[in-house]
Amino acid sequence: MPSPIQEYLQQLHARYLPITEGKVADYIPELSKANPGHFGICVATRDGHVYEIGDTRQAFTIQSISKALVYGLALEDRGEEHVLSRIGVEPSGEAFNAISLKEGTGTPFNPMINAGAIATCGQILKKDGKNRIQRIMDYLGAFAGRGLSVNESVYRSESSTGHRNRAIGWLLRNFGILDEDPDETLETYFQQCSLEVTCRDLALMGATLANQGVHPVTQQRAIAADYVDNVLGVMATCGMYDWSGEWVYRVGLPAKSGVGGGILAVLPGQLGIAVFSPPLDSQGNSHRGIQVCMDLSRELSLHMLNPTATPRSAARLAYHGAEVLARRRLPPSARELLRRHGQCIRVIELQGGLIFSTIEPVLRYAAELATTLCRHLIFDLRTVVSANAVSVNLLAELCTKLAQQGVRVLFCQPGRMLVALRSVGISLDHVFSTLDAALENCEDALLLEVSGASWRPRGRLELGECPLFRACTAEDVAFLRQELPERGYGAGTTLITAGHTADEMLVLLKGTVEVRIRVDGSNQRVDVLTAGMTVGEMAFLDGSPRSADVVAQESVECVVIPKAWFDALTERRPQLKIKLLQEMTREISARLRQANLEISALHRS
Amino acid sequence: MPSPIQEYLQQLHARYLPITEGKVADYIPELSKANPGHFGICVATRDGHVYEIGDTRQAFTIQSISKALVYGLALEDRGEEHVLSRIGVEPSGEAFNAISLKEGTGTPFNPMINAGAIATCGQILKKDGKNRIQRIMDYLGAFAGRGLSVNESVYRSESSTGHRNRAIGWLLRNFGILDEDPDETLETYFQQCSLEVTCRDLALMGATLANQGVHPVTQQRAIAADYVDNVLGVMATCGMYDWSGEWVYRVGLPAKSGVGGGILAVLPGQLGIAVFSPPLDSQGNSHRGIQVCMDLSRELSLHMLNPTATPRSAARLAYHGAEVLARRRLPPSARELLRRHGQCIRVIELQGGLIFSTIEPVLRYAAELATTLCRHLIFDLRTVVSANAVSVNLLAELCTKLAQQGVRVLFCQPGRMLVALRSVGISLDHVFSTLDAALENCEDALLLEVSGASWRPRGRLELGECPLFRACTAEDVAFLRQELPERGYGAGTTLITAGHTADEMLVLLKGTVEVRIRVDGSNQRVDVLTAGMTVGEMAFLDGSPRSADVVAQESVECVVIPKAWFDALTERRPQLKIKLLQEMTREISARLRQANLEISALHRS
Repeated sequence: MPSPIQEYLQQLHARYLPITEGKVADYIPELSKANPGHFGICVATRDGHVYEIGDTRQAFTIQSISKALVYGLALEDRGEEHVLSRIGVEPSGEAFNAISLKEGTGTPFNPMINAGAIATCGQILKKDGKNRIQRIMDYLGAFAGRGLSVNESVYRSESSTGHRNRAIGWLLRNFGILDEDPDETLETYFQQCSLEVTCRDLALMGATLANQGVHPVTQQRAIAADYVDNVLGVMATCGMYDWSGEWVYRVGLPAKSGVGGGILAVLPGQLGIAVFSPPLDSQGNSHRGIQVCMDLSRELSLHMLNPTATPRSAARLAYHGAEVLARRRLPPSARELLRRHGQCIRVIELQGGLIFSTIEPVLRYAAELATTLCRHLIFDLRTVVSANAVSVNLLAELCTKLAQQGVRVLFCQPGRMLVALRSVGISLDHVFSTLDAALENCEDALLLEVSGASWRPRGRLELGECPLFRACTAEDVAFLRQELPERGYGAGTTLITAGHTADEMLVLLKGTVEVRIRVDGSNQRVDVLTAGMTVGEMAFLDGSPRSADVVAQESVECVVIPKAWFDALTERRPQLKIKLLQEMTREISARLRQANLEISALHRS
Repeated sequence: MPSPIQEYLQQLHARYLPITEGKVADYIPELSKANPGHFGICVATRDGHVYEIGDTRQAFTIQSISKALVYGLALEDRGEEHVLSRIGVEPSGEAFNAISLKEGTGTPFNPMINAGAIATCGQILKKDGKNRIQRIMDYLGAFAGRGLSVNESVYRSESSTGHRNRAIGWLLRNFGILDEDPDETLETYFQQCSLEVTCRDLALMGATLANQGVHPVTQQRAIAADYVDNVLGVMATCGMYDWSGEWVYRVGLPAKSGVGGGILAVLPGQLGIAVFSPPLDSQGNSHRGIQVCMDLSRELSLHMLNPTATPRSAARLAYHGAEVLARRRLPPSARELLRRHGQCIRVIELQGGLIFSTIEPVLRYAAELATTLCRHLIFDLRTVVSANAVSVNLLAELCTKLAQQGVRVLFCQPGRMLVALRSVGISLDHVFSTLDAALENCEDALLLEVSGASWRPRGRLELGECPLFRACTAEDVAFLRQELPERGYGAGTTLITAGHTADEMLVLLKGTVEVRIRVDGSNQRVDVLTAGMTVGEMAFLDGSPRSADVVAQESVECVVIPKAWFDALTERRPQLKIKLLQEMTREISARLRQANLEISALHRS
């Protein structure tokens, strides 16, 4: 099926394909050889899907676009304050090749003009046995997700005509911005500008910046998360030379252009966008590139300053402990206690990214809960995608304060957030890997509080103590004891196998069993049953094959009710059979009611 | 319970409270009277919650902060291109009171310097019987959520000393940027700068910009959504004078300061932040204000260019038609068909804000579904908070393309999105207000496709045709017919009332009934039953009171099974009672199985 987005990009490409305005860069002979007809557009998503149309696989030199990325490497090598002491971050209002250094200090206005870019290049360390250009190639390669190489003829051409840049280099040396004679730095700079990329590479570089610095396909980190905003910051204010203010105003995407004809734009947190078209306008930006970016921003509503889909609260769903119970069977008395007191347990399911503004409403909501019956609060973090340090700290402070109010806070998370929670001092006793485990912990604590005793049966039950036989007379029980065989299972053995015919039903007298289904090759617990409970009665009654495995968690003893015996009971002792059927129906009805309650809670939004 | 966020702001306030650097503005006597000790911090959320500490209710004059907001009014009055032809949007790199007009055209560099602000003020129309300052007061009042007034003594002081601004006014007149002599415009400008606000007002103004232009408390629109990005754009690039580049780099929040000591900062889509502290630094920005904003941005990770919580896909959950069914009871045969063919129905639940990047993965997913068994696709939009035009257009194009693949697309939405869906040509036959209605539509269509007939019973059933009596012999049926009374109900009448004792059970022979519970004062449908089905059997069996109302949707006929009669059946015809109990258990078991399937699907994430 053709994608509406692909079709849109095709239309956009067709719209500007006939445009021939602009002039291919000709300050060096090699660049003037570029084909003015080349035209490609790429949009890369944060999960690495790339929409592309036109000449998106055509190699060309990265030129000034490298300035933005290499600035990130300088920050990583030297730290923010050192770099800021050498290179400013103010728009200059001047052309790209202006020798604009600040009075007195000689610092270039920003890293996007040539002076600033050469100074930036000079900050890169030789390290790990690699020289500067090797490190730059590795660094930019991580953004592209593939190895990059220098176009040697463009490099030689840049180097042999780079007199103005040499003048800038010596001025920087004069002001002490460069620590050594500029020759090597300049050669590195010329090579850096001559790295070959494609439009597709640029879009993925942009997506890497949009994705907090991690390449969306290779999952390799290209730049420390802390410096992403710095790189995008200089792109936003200085990326488009003396058209930067209007660019932010109209397009609203941090961007950088190069005289090779490329433009790389980023919608922070969302998209990387690249356009390739060699003819340049009078400001040195790709003519078609600018038009395409303006149309894309307007037609797809991509302006970063008016985001309409910013998440609100991270809370996706909230329910209480009488609505959703752990996946285990409780005896009727315990179920009744949870029905009455379940409001003391609250579950708040969080989702998406946790940051200040998504966790802030959650803190308010939790503070309100502390004024209600709630005494056990579970944060279900299983669908949380990321959590920054601020949000985790705030959660930890919330826990401390709620504990002072007598509210215990538990977390359920699938492993990803364990380190973060531990780092802020949350006890691992309060962290669970499944919601069931967290719910069980709260339910057991609550049941103990309200009843003063554990709900778990101790030792072996007598037949007459099992709910199924509740309506039976002593004589009935004696009959059953005589008629029904008993059976034992060792820990880990299987009582019931999914797919088998249900020719019997079991009543547990001792021990615990787990009901499991196989999902994607692994076992998933769907129920846990303890002494007194009936095992496998649904398939037994309706004749369908077993739907799940039942495995003994410990040594188990049970009474077996064979189907043939149960069938014959209709004639032999119909009144007894009626009693049994009524109890079974009552039990299944109670579970259906609970399931309906849970469905309502889960459908709530 | 003390909020961790409030405590953080208290610490931040205490950190800078002792700082006395900076100098209160003294270019007019009135401003020099400001108390340098005043210090307030406010953070306002997009839902209107305001955290405040210190002197947040102290009135002071808005000064240059008004420039940013009045620029929005000029855009609304004159349109973007007209305003851009008079006032640029490039950072000037110069001080606030520089007379920096572009060579040739005389256009001020941007609306944040005095020249640009005076030119902007001159664009405001006299309208609706109101003069300029009245319109400006109304406009800024909508941002604050309350009426604002001019501090007359500050205004007179500004006016009597505003010689430099008068010079600027006449220069603007000279270049034709102002259409009339500048006197009135200048007086309006002086009044505009003398409007009194509090720190709290500024934070709510910021929250209004963060909230796409709608005041979070009053819910009044203060600025057209289309111009929010323009106002924030000039704040981002020009808001902090010649420190704007470094501000974006370090703080990353569009902001505007005023010599009254206020700073207003915005985290687009999320927060409004305001600081009030009159002592200014050498650039004319509040000294403590700058420090506080830098700390807030760093310590709460608020830099707009590295958002870590941008939503990914709008899809929250997906399931198929064998997992979640409409809330109605189907006959066993229809249930079995849905179990086998339910994969032909797919539900995708969307949430949050629909924009290009959140709907894009949904389009990809839907295109994949078209290659599976899926023939009916429901988009559940009930938890969609907003949808921009791009996303709705893409959904409409998706529908067209899926229809070509033989996939019918339906929408479920609670009214909010009806206009938007209709505007892109989606037939209202495909839009439903509840998920049940959409599911029913798909289930009925699917059942008709696979069975060639409607599953709905026609006419009146005989007793023996009802599933409950499936195992009965002809003699049993004759006995039942003789023993059990029949009863009719008119459309709209109540068969069963919640809370009542369950002293009978009904078997429908004809007509449809709806099972409803009351939630927050309104009725919510939980089930629909048709001829052949058993009504009220659960409370009947377990002795609990009725949990729901049952109301006839049309004229209904049924057989009544009184509890006393059913109890007596144990002695009178035990074998018949066993047959009935077994059928009831089988039916309830089947419903429990289905409920468990639905719970698994809803818990999936």
